[in-house]
Amino acid sequence: MRAVVFEGTLQFRHDVELRPLDQDDVIVDVIKAGICETDLQLCQGYMGFSGTLGHEFVGIARSGLFAGQRVAGEINCACHACEICQRQLPNHCPHRTVIGIAGHDGAFAESVVVPEKNLHAIPDEISDGEAVFVEPIAAACRIAEQIHLAGGEVVTVLGDGRLGNLCAQVLRHQGCRVRVVGKHEYKLNLLEQLQISTIRLDKLQPQRDSDIVVDCTGSPTGLTTALRLVRPCGTIILKTTVAADQSIHMAPFVIDEIKLIGSRCGPFAVAIELLRNHAISVEPLLTATYPLEEAIVAFGHAVRKDALKVVFNVR
Amino acid sequence: MRAVVFEGTLQFRHDVELRPLDQDDVIVDVIKAGICETDLQLCQGYMGFSGTLGHEFVGIARSGLFAGQRVAGEINCACHACEICQRQLPNHCPHRTVIGIAGHDGAFAESVVVPEKNLHAIPDEISDGEAVFVEPIAAACRIAEQIHLAGGEVVTVLGDGRLGNLCAQVLRHQGCRVRVVGKHEYKLNLLEQLQISTIRLDKLQPQRDSDIVVDCTGSPTGLTTALRLVRPCGTIILKTTVAADQSIHMAPFVIDEIKLIGSRCGPFAVAIELLRNHAISVEPLLTATYPLEEAIVAFGHAVRKDALKVVFNVR
Repeated sequence: MRAVVFEGTLQFRHDVELRPLDQDDVIVDVIKAGICETDLQLCQGYMGFSGTLGHEFVGIARSGLFAGQRVAGEINCACHACEICQRQLPNHCPHRTVIGIAGHDGAFAESVVVPEKNLHAIPDEISDGEAVFVEPIAAACRIAEQIHLAGGEVVTVLGDGRLGNLCAQVLRHQGCRVRVVGKHEYKLNLLEQLQISTIRLDKLQPQRDSDIVVDCTGSPTGLTTALRLVRPCGTIILKTTVAADQSIHMAPFVIDEIKLIGSRCGPFAVAIELLRNHAISVEPLLTATYPLEEAIVAFGHAVRKDALKVVFNVR
Repeated sequence: MRAVVFEGTLQFRHDVELRPLDQDDVIVDVIKAGICETDLQLCQGYMGFSGTLGHEFVGIARSGLFAGQRVAGEINCACHACEICQRQLPNHCPHRTVIGIAGHDGAFAESVVVPEKNLHAIPDEISDGEAVFVEPIAAACRIAEQIHLAGGEVVTVLGDGRLGNLCAQVLRHQGCRVRVVGKHEYKLNLLEQLQISTIRLDKLQPQRDSDIVVDCTGSPTGLTTALRLVRPCGTIILKTTVAADQSIHMAPFVIDEIKLIGSRCGPFAVAIELLRNHAISVEPLLTATYPLEEAIVAFGHAVRKDALKVVFNVR
């Protein structure tokens, strides 16, 4: 089948085989799939990944419970048997594969193999273009699973990109008073159009009044900026990974009793409900669509500073 | 009066004046006062402190609500008016002084000035020697205010010193399954005598099975060790400050959704109850006592690897 593969270099290929199916696996015929920051990092060698990329997708299940229906799929494929899985932490299963990220071919392909447990039906109210955003919206929804949000919290989101935008929208929907700090005029304007207040990074006054700071910068400087904005006993949420070591002065964490929480994948069911209720606006985030054949151009576009979500139209 | 002062160098002096009293201040005549890790750091220039040292003490209040009674005193002297104080976070008041640590003369002296709000009566069941431990026990009790402990949590305490020992005892009392990682035979034996299991750092097998890791090492390597021991979605409590910048690989925080919580001063009332009920054993921690006049020798003793708590007998 046709697929976008990373094997030291990014390639479009016609001759890619589907991964062998395990007992509970379902073949999903991909409709659309989005390029994520992680895909760009994988192409830089992150995780040492080799195989078909892509983990944000909507497609049609060929068999099983969802046969013939549109589905999105959670990306962590757990063993559901080990101690961590027994603790209800399958996303942290040490034996897991991760679709398009670790040991499991992804969705930039005509079809992708997904455990049935991971699938969620997409209701008719959600378009194919919107459904591609279920995975990153779920990641934004993870925050409310990790900390109690009473509403009214002052939240600063660092980063005006894809994930920063979605985190801001989700947290605003959960009753937080959200502002986004970013560098890109176009992306900040887009947030303003969504009635989310914004500040340009170069005009940011360090004022330690944020109950929560969400770092979506993917930059080593994000955490240092977060420490300048979070109030005593406040919380910093780390949403993006930085591959390199960083030099950090840890004493403020103790003196000001700051909480730092790493945050990764989230609840698909919640994300689907948000999209179904039009609580999150994703269409303005769609930058461009490409066929799989134009993978190199599509990735080149996704890297650009003014790009938000670049999507493959597979069928 | 007689007092132990740090002014670039550590000095015992006969001619130290009491700090001027504010409206709600009470003079406390010090009975005993303990040397803490922070005191040793202040003598290295930490916080740029200058004045009378000492913040772990028991004494007799001269006036007010507790006149004639034995008292211990919380160390953060807040304004009780600002926004942070209104949020019930007086220990984080940006206008605060901190007894013996920042802008407020401490308790290695015949008398110390303390806001009445900060005082707690010491019940008869608690000896003077035990009462010196109220402040560090309260710091250990802070952990249970910051995270919910259901009991049964697997806790690794890094560091077999004063604070590590007290954190281990407090968390064990709260139903956690505690082990302490340390370097010092004598201190580890002491923990074993308290029926707390121990591991020598050089024999530690990295196994990511701790629900909670409490870093009491005061060392830049503590956090790296903690990351090797904490389970996915587990919690690292930072109890000790490291003055220098440290180089840290932050990606595991995100991938494994680790929570890091800085932790400082805690509830005196809880600590006093623990001591009154003999739930915490502090007498084995008392290494030596000295008069104020022998401050240089006392600090020299407190620095030694085999020392736990060195205490001044003031009267």
